[in-house]
Amino acid sequence: MSETNRKIRLGAFIMATGHHVAAWRHPQAEADAGHNIDHYRGLAQTAERGLFDLVFVADSPAGWDGDKEPEIRSRVSHSAHFEPVTLWSALSQVTDRIGFVATASTTYEDPYLLARKFASLDHISKGRAAWNVVTTAADVSKNFSIAGHPAHANRYERAEEVVDLVLDLWDSYEDDALVIDKESGVFLDPAKVHQVNHHGQFFDVAGPLNVARSPQGRPVVVQAGASEAGRNLAARTAEVIFTANQTLAAGQEFYADLKGRLAKYGRRPDQLLIMPGIFPVLGGTEVEAQENYEFIQSLVHPSIAWAILKQYYVGVDLSGYSLDDVAPPLPGDTELNKSRLKLVSDLASTGLTLRQLYLSLATARGHRTVVGTPEQIADAIEVWFNNGAADGFNIMPPILPTGLTDFVDQVVPILQRRGLFRTEYEGSTLRQNLGLERPVNRFLARDTQQQRSA
Amino acid sequence: MSETNRKIRLGAFIMATGHHVAAWRHPQAEADAGHNIDHYRGLAQTAERGLFDLVFVADSPAGWDGDKEPEIRSRVSHSAHFEPVTLWSALSQVTDRIGFVATASTTYEDPYLLARKFASLDHISKGRAAWNVVTTAADVSKNFSIAGHPAHANRYERAEEVVDLVLDLWDSYEDDALVIDKESGVFLDPAKVHQVNHHGQFFDVAGPLNVARSPQGRPVVVQAGASEAGRNLAARTAEVIFTANQTLAAGQEFYADLKGRLAKYGRRPDQLLIMPGIFPVLGGTEVEAQENYEFIQSLVHPSIAWAILKQYYVGVDLSGYSLDDVAPPLPGDTELNKSRLKLVSDLASTGLTLRQLYLSLATARGHRTVVGTPEQIADAIEVWFNNGAADGFNIMPPILPTGLTDFVDQVVPILQRRGLFRTEYEGSTLRQNLGLERPVNRFLARDTQQQRSA
Repeated sequence: MSETNRKIRLGAFIMATGHHVAAWRHPQAEADAGHNIDHYRGLAQTAERGLFDLVFVADSPAGWDGDKEPEIRSRVSHSAHFEPVTLWSALSQVTDRIGFVATASTTYEDPYLLARKFASLDHISKGRAAWNVVTTAADVSKNFSIAGHPAHANRYERAEEVVDLVLDLWDSYEDDALVIDKESGVFLDPAKVHQVNHHGQFFDVAGPLNVARSPQGRPVVVQAGASEAGRNLAARTAEVIFTANQTLAAGQEFYADLKGRLAKYGRRPDQLLIMPGIFPVLGGTEVEAQENYEFIQSLVHPSIAWAILKQYYVGVDLSGYSLDDVAPPLPGDTELNKSRLKLVSDLASTGLTLRQLYLSLATARGHRTVVGTPEQIADAIEVWFNNGAADGFNIMPPILPTGLTDFVDQVVPILQRRGLFRTEYEGSTLRQNLGLERPVNRFLARDTQQQRSA
Repeated sequence: MSETNRKIRLGAFIMATGHHVAAWRHPQAEADAGHNIDHYRGLAQTAERGLFDLVFVADSPAGWDGDKEPEIRSRVSHSAHFEPVTLWSALSQVTDRIGFVATASTTYEDPYLLARKFASLDHISKGRAAWNVVTTAADVSKNFSIAGHPAHANRYERAEEVVDLVLDLWDSYEDDALVIDKESGVFLDPAKVHQVNHHGQFFDVAGPLNVARSPQGRPVVVQAGASEAGRNLAARTAEVIFTANQTLAAGQEFYADLKGRLAKYGRRPDQLLIMPGIFPVLGGTEVEAQENYEFIQSLVHPSIAWAILKQYYVGVDLSGYSLDDVAPPLPGDTELNKSRLKLVSDLASTGLTLRQLYLSLATARGHRTVVGTPEQIADAIEVWFNNGAADGFNIMPPILPTGLTDFVDQVVPILQRRGLFRTEYEGSTLRQNLGLERPVNRFLARDTQQQRSA
């Protein structure tokens, strides 16, 4: 693709009531969003109307802050969220073009079952499935009959193994393995079905997968880790990466770093799309946008404010502080999501008060907040896109469904007028729309390699 | 419900190309059914047009006969099948009333993830989900990094534990746990969310589940085991049981036995619905039906015929036999599905030739085959329903989609005219249509019990 034809990729990062921590309290929020399929259906259809490439849900296989005091528990809206593949499969039948990125954990899910559900989704959606690979930072081991939550390094070792195993399983069947000749009674060609015979550090899986090769060859692989281990895993295996960067400089650093790592794995820069998160607070005028922002910030209950701060000040006694005191330095290394911690630590060191700190965390959990008119939001997008910080953006509406509807109705047309965004879908699969190639079957690729080296 | 108002329950047992082992070769079969979502969509919509209670898919988390010789492998159509919950979730959005029974294994799936996906499906389908509990008879351990396939007794011990654990997880949230008061900022009442704190022989799971209580209270629990352990598990926990019986006497024995076991667990006979499988081969006349039957039987390739026989004659040398020899006795106990084995053993002892035996197995894998006109099929259904052998039937069309369409168009109207089958859905959830109560939350039921005994 020539540089002049380069188009922005857009994802809608769906979080039940919206990305603001107090979103559910907003009059425009669908407060029971988490278990309301009609709400999600509307969001997917709105994103498709806006010609978005994809919708995305984050996930953790646990959702209850059982360790927190009842006062906090009672005010948190994360009570119920659908299993992501189950959710997206439903919505694949009421949409035609939008891609579906579902999160699944390499630490807590079984690789065979994981491979199977995503391959199923790719068939069912006719080529619109993607897997967001996560290692699950939070300790949810108590739900899984295992000795304890693996440490960061161990989780990434396991993730490296699981991703390779799942990629192999997805390629168990060659594209033309199914002969289906009614006359002769030959259904398939066994020579074109591959055992994976995986024997690794963590898993032994014979295969093959019990799902034929899927329309995209295999689902698109998405990642979001920003640690050293996360960046390497992404450079080796990811096709899309979601990231949280607050400043253009940080975005450029991340972009250049990731693209620079690809050659080591024999990959081209255009084989990995980088999509930072952006939290757009819209208004008809700058003043109105600011008022909208301040209104939603005002909905954060003080108990939640302190709870947010305590998430990061692990082991620090904040009882002597008021919210208007300058934020003290954060403690060092913890097992909490490290890239998030770095970002918060940077924020805390800029002289913010604790109130300013929790408010900036409440908005977008560390992602880039842009408050302004539709033109200003479009500007903020264009600058990063044209200056080596992004191939696209993961739009994180503060409140749902209105935050997404407003973006589609007000910002998308501006991006289209500027020639930065599509005016119709290029293809029918997610890969086609993202401009990613349909991958060669890994078993065939290996055969070719072996022939070359012979 | 009074006896006179008693209505037949109907399930459509969906197997990709149909239940006949050679179904895929039939001119009317959708040969690529296994990975064709439009095929499944049509089936679910046809079943709903026929006012069926439910559609059902069997499942095993492996699908490849890798141990068999290529000649057999090449002729078997089980290459690709969707993960059942992913499949049904998709179809829940293009139907309104039909229930969805998905199979999932207590031996190979994680209980927390299993509970979550089914609870998600119950929300997404607005109360139409059911879990068919299986222990997975076939050894698929090679795909799951475990030491080996657990023996029958161990599988059932595990199943007893998993079912209880999953039932508890589904009740983690009380129906009114979510307060969602935007004004005060109270989202939920922590006192109405329950940890399950399960510490069993096989699993330790703290909970709660991260999905709110679902529209049906919880998905309907379905089972199909016919061994002693299977019958006890069903009597204690199942709400629907699928069964394979060839004769009215066998059907009556099974029905009376299962219903008789319920009192021991404090349950009423109407809390467990018994639905035998029936394999209907339709024709406009008796002669035509018989011709249709013989035609599809003729599609069984000889290699497949011998392979079917060898599945049951484990360790027996059949090389001296021709297909027209009388079937020798079957070997004794194996780890193969025991209820199936018993049935085949009974068949083999009636003096059938090996050809007659494989042909009777090829039709419906041990289920009751009825060949005849629509009136005769309706008669076959009515006799069992009115004589203590069935509350309903799991219809197993030989060929799909035509076998289901024909049943809906030709047999359903007869059952309706006879007053045996509904003319419109009674409710919007699967429980309502099956006449099953919405269960009281298990944590509340325990509280009540404790109060009574205090």
